[in-house]
Order: sequence, then structure tokens, then C-alpha cells
Amino acid sequence: MKILLRLKYLGTDFCGWQYQPNARTVQGTLTEAAEKLFGEHSDITGCSRTDSGVHANDFAATVELSKTANRIPLERIPTAFAPFLPNDISVSSAEAVSDGFHPRYDVKYKEYIYKIHVAPIRDPFLFGRVWHYDRRLLPDAAERMNECATALIGAHDFASFMAAGSKIEDTVRTVKYCTVEQNDDIITVKIAANGFLYNMVRIIAGTLVLAGAGKLDKGGMEKIIASKNRAAAGLTAPPDGLYLNKVIY
Amino acid sequence: MKILLRLKYLGTDFCGWQYQPNARTVQGTLTEAAEKLFGEHSDITGCSRTDSGVHANDFAATVELSKTANRIPLERIPTAFAPFLPNDISVSSAEAVSDGFHPRYDVKYKEYIYKIHVAPIRDPFLFGRVWHYDRRLLPDAAERMNECATALIGAHDFASFMAAGSKIEDTVRTVKYCTVEQNDDIITVKIAANGFLYNMVRIIAGTLVLAGAGKLDKGGMEKIIASKNRAAAGLTAPPDGLYLNKVIY
Repeated sequence: MKILLRLKYLGTDFCGWQYQPNARTVQGTLTEAAEKLFGEHSDITGCSRTDSGVHANDFAATVELSKTANRIPLERIPTAFAPFLPNDISVSSAEAVSDGFHPRYDVKYKEYIYKIHVAPIRDPFLFGRVWHYDRRLLPDAAERMNECATALIGAHDFASFMAAGSKIEDTVRTVKYCTVEQNDDIITVKIAANGFLYNMVRIIAGTLVLAGAGKLDKGGMEKIIASKNRAAAGLTAPPDGLYLNKVIY
Repeated sequence: MKILLRLKYLGTDFCGWQYQPNARTVQGTLTEAAEKLFGEHSDITGCSRTDSGVHANDFAATVELSKTANRIPLERIPTAFAPFLPNDISVSSAEAVSDGFHPRYDVKYKEYIYKIHVAPIRDPFLFGRVWHYDRRLLPDAAERMNECATALIGAHDFASFMAAGSKIEDTVRTVKYCTVEQNDDIITVKIAANGFLYNMVRIIAGTLVLAGAGKLDKGGMEKIIASKNRAAAGLTAPPDGLYLNKVIY
């Protein structure tokens, strides 16, 4: 049977999602835990490949078990996993899915959030969990960024927001929404799309801060999109502030 | 000159505040950083001795400099410290104080908060930062705990809430306020007093959860206080949930 797990993880001490033989990865750690829990090796497939240092409030992954392996009621799987998982991963829920279900190909859309801590001094409680941005932003930075972000909504060729050297050919994606809000000294970018190019959210965050500094407006953002040129966009914001926040099937 | 620093630190990777020759402590780390920043060794005195794993949103400490050592304007000290401090400590502010000022003896009162995460599954983002409490509490746990906590307010002999084996003789302290609130699945105990006995807040937190489970009411709390017997109170809650939150002079 195939079980869809929802996970949370703090990405700081992981070399990303995808299994690597000599590195601590979320997939590798989860695979080991599942083997202990279910008493058999099972293939685990994720909804995306988060990078080193990137977090997940809601990551989706399937575990494929032989028919006899799971004797644990689905609703008890999250607590049953806990003793086999390190403190930086937890399983939030488990549900049965059909054998044909694919956690990556069947995604309708995903939502990411990107957190920017705007303050002269870094906060020990936020280390690794935000982009600490100590350069000057305007007092109405979040409003400016939010206005600028509207240019991203809809179907566009996002080639300008893809890491240089990526081999993806179809760079058109549909952004469902992209909003920017500020709470105290944290600016949060929230973006949902049917798919994301490599480093897309981090490059968008690194570009939106230019709007917060008064150096980019919506028209400028439209030009960056139209250029289909990575060099036209801003820097790639660090992984620390990025959270996969929702996966919708 | 004497400078009063306000600090924040994540206590997880520190063996508490107080200097120890072979352990990573906040005092030791800050002393080293101050030596690099000011170019001379200086004595650093803290407002209290937080234990291993205990955090501070606002810790106060003085640094004593020879008259010639500080060429840095006070308002720039927080950012000037940053390059010399690890990611789990930051300096929030610096102000000049008189030579006679003592950061421990001159405290009017201190406020601690204690965070309890009430959920069946632990949250990777809260690890080390809360007491993960997976046993059952009543739906109105926070209200019950808040009512029970009113018994603590005022001047009392808090011997029941002092770690066994402490050598303090005068165990009377005055609690200014003690409140309990819940936000989502976090219950926060907030308590201010003119002084605290060893482990006092952690034993209070470990006792108040009994009220949240319906096993203790205000009258029961009054009896625990009157008993002056450590064994009458609840367990010592772990250091993870404890934050020194305010120090008032």
C-alpha cells in the first residue's frame, strides 16, 4: 500500500531532501526511520527536492509498503514515527493513497514562504530560520514589495528567476498568488505556483528586496520577467529564510 | 567605565551563564568577545546565573573597562559586538552606568516566561525552545493554571519551589505577578519576582501543569506553599522552556 506522509522539518542540519550516500538528508533519515517502524525497506518519494538549509512546514512524501508491512493504524503513524526520527523532523499526518498517486507529478500547486528579518542586529532565536537583512529598507518596504510582486502573478516565462546553469527547457510557470506582509521586523513573502524553477523563490526574494529599498517597482519587475535573463534579477537569497509551506493535490 | 549590556541568547548549546574553564558558557563567550572588541580583558558580571539550556530574551550584564579602553560610541556597541559573537548570542543595547551599579544586587525584579508546547507530536521548529508536553491537559488548562497561579502572588516562603539541596536560608520571595495564557498550542507562564530560588520557575511550571490536568486548584497550591516541602510540589520542568524575559532596575 502507498501512504502519503506530511512532514515538518528544520532544514538547518540537513543537506536537503534528496538522498546522498555520505550526507545527512531528509529522505535518507526518513527512509531509515520508516524501515525501523514498518520492519521493511520501502521506497520514499518526495514532492520536491528542497536544498540544503531549506525548511518545510508541510512536505509531502509517499512510502510504499508491501501489503503485509503496515499493521499500524494510519492515525497513529505520526506518533509511532516519533521515536525513530531525530528532533528536526516530524510526521504530521498519514493517509492512504492509490498506487497510481505520485507525490511530485500530482501536485496542483505548492506554497512557499520566505522570511526576511529586517533589523540591524541578528536575533539568536532566528539564526538559520530567516534571511537577516541589515541593509536599509524603506519604512513602507513591505507595501512596495507587495505591489511589485503582483507583476509575478499569472503564467510567465520565469527564466530570469532560475539559477544559471539549470537544464530545464520549459521555464513557463503559473504563479497563483504572491503577497508580501510585515509583522514586527519580519517581512514574509508568500508565493504559490503550479511549479517552481531551481532557486526561483530565493531569486524572487532577492529581487523583491530591491523594491523594499526603493530601487525597483512593478514596471521594473515586468521588465525583468520579459528579459528572460537571470542577470536582470536580484541576488539569490540564502536558503535559511525559505519554507515549503503547503502542498496541494 | 562600567557599561550595562542587554543580551539575548539561545541557551541550547551553552552550559549556562556562569564561566567554567572547560565548557561553553555565555559569560565565557561574552568575555572573549569583549576582549576582542575593547582590546583589553574586562570583568563581566551577570544579573543571574541561568542554567544549561535556559534562554534569555533580555539578560543584563556589566562590563568594566579601564578609562581608555572604550572608543566605541555606546549606541554602536551592539553592532560592533556582532562579528565577535557566535550566532546564538547578540547584544541588544549598551548604556553607561555608575561604578557602584551592580547588575545582580540592583535588580528590582526579573520576569521569566516558561513555554509549554501542548501537542501529541513535537514540532521540529520548537525543539529545545519549549517543554513538549504530550500528556493530556483539559481544554481549559490555561484558565485553570492561571487561576491556580494567583496563589503564588505576593510575599511567600517558596521553599516548596526550591531545588532540593539548595543552601539558601531565606526562602521568602515576592511574586509581583504570575499569569498563564495560551496561544494556539503554546501555554506561556509569565512570572515576575524580586528574586527567584534555584529552579523556582521550573518547579512552578511543573506544578501548574497539574492544574491544567485538573489535579490541582488554587487551594491545593496554597497548601503546597504552606508545606514548605519540595516533595509537595510538582516535577522540575526541563530548562528548554525557560526564558529570562525582562530585568528591571
